[in-house]
Amino acid sequence: MSSRFEIRLAGSGGQGLVLAGVILAEAAGIYDGKFVCQTQSYGPEARGGASKAEVVISDAEIDYPKAIRPDVILALNQKSLDAYLGDLKAEGVLLVDADLVQEVPETGALSIPFTRLAREAGRELVANIVALGALAAITGAVSPEALKAAVLARVPAGSRELNERALEAGLAAGAKIMAAPRTTPSETGMGDQD
Amino acid sequence: MSSRFEIRLAGSGGQGLVLAGVILAEAAGIYDGKFVCQTQSYGPEARGGASKAEVVISDAEIDYPKAIRPDVILALNQKSLDAYLGDLKAEGVLLVDADLVQEVPETGALSIPFTRLAREAGRELVANIVALGALAAITGAVSPEALKAAVLARVPAGSRELNERALEAGLAAGAKIMAAPRTTPSETGMGDQD
Repeated sequence: MSSRFEIRLAGSGGQGLVLAGVILAEAAGIYDGKFVCQTQSYGPEARGGASKAEVVISDAEIDYPKAIRPDVILALNQKSLDAYLGDLKAEGVLLVDADLVQEVPETGALSIPFTRLAREAGRELVANIVALGALAAITGAVSPEALKAAVLARVPAGSRELNERALEAGLAAGAKIMAAPRTTPSETGMGDQD
Repeated sequence: MSSRFEIRLAGSGGQGLVLAGVILAEAAGIYDGKFVCQTQSYGPEARGGASKAEVVISDAEIDYPKAIRPDVILALNQKSLDAYLGDLKAEGVLLVDADLVQEVPETGALSIPFTRLAREAGRELVANIVALGALAAITGAVSPEALKAAVLARVPAGSRELNERALEAGLAAGAKIMAAPRTTPSETGMGDQD
């Protein structure tokens, strides 16, 4: 990946995206040793229940801490996809929840049932951790080891096993979607990552 | 307070400053309806256990999301005070843990035993919440009602009473230190807030 790598996580309040942003940042910054800025922004729309977190990862000091043209957008609902799709870099990765996002753009998306996988792992609440696992497997933005360390350091001690299952499910789902034969890889924006 | 208000929270890892930053931002952004940017930054020093979170609050959209000349610095250990004191605005508020910061600058500081008050409330772990209460009472950056709502929305359900006690202790300590007669109020940088 290029030196500056921008990630935007978006969905509704209660989907745990702020925590996901903090975990992703700590994985990259504390455990992978990168420069990282992690940002939440709130405006008048915050009362509407929208939630957004951003992580910028770099090998060098970061001048501007917010995502300008995200390399990755994770959208856990339709509204956030519609709001942010226009910001995505031309070759960027669009990751969506397969069940919660119905309308995917013509340019395609990597669609994974994060929430369903979380339910199967034990609780829908950990869909954010499933999504982080998939994001790591697909983009390489953080190492699986760093992500696991950051997850375990942040989640309550009583829910460690649940979160480990969620992370494994996400890593596996991400690896699987990347291994699948695709006739039009460029449509997913992942052509340069093969 | 002026339209753009910058807060930096600093200490060591494990003192809960990232969570404190998230709570403060959600209090101002979701419950008080302000524009807010909340940032964590990690660099090579992150492995050393330093922790820093920033919150910028404004009545208008925020252009640059990081604190440039903080209006408030909260320092929960000596190292973070030494590292960041030079950035504090001339009339800024310096808040320090009375037991964990031994050397206060000549210009003075508002010194409150956050960690001791947290212990008395039930657990040292909630020193971050005590500090947020004091910061709110002293600066008015967020309303006590918004802060309480944000705290209760973020902390585990099982620790709500503990966190409420910590918040009340912090609000009371902040109110008390502001009410105390001071012969040299300008030394604390709070002269313009009376």
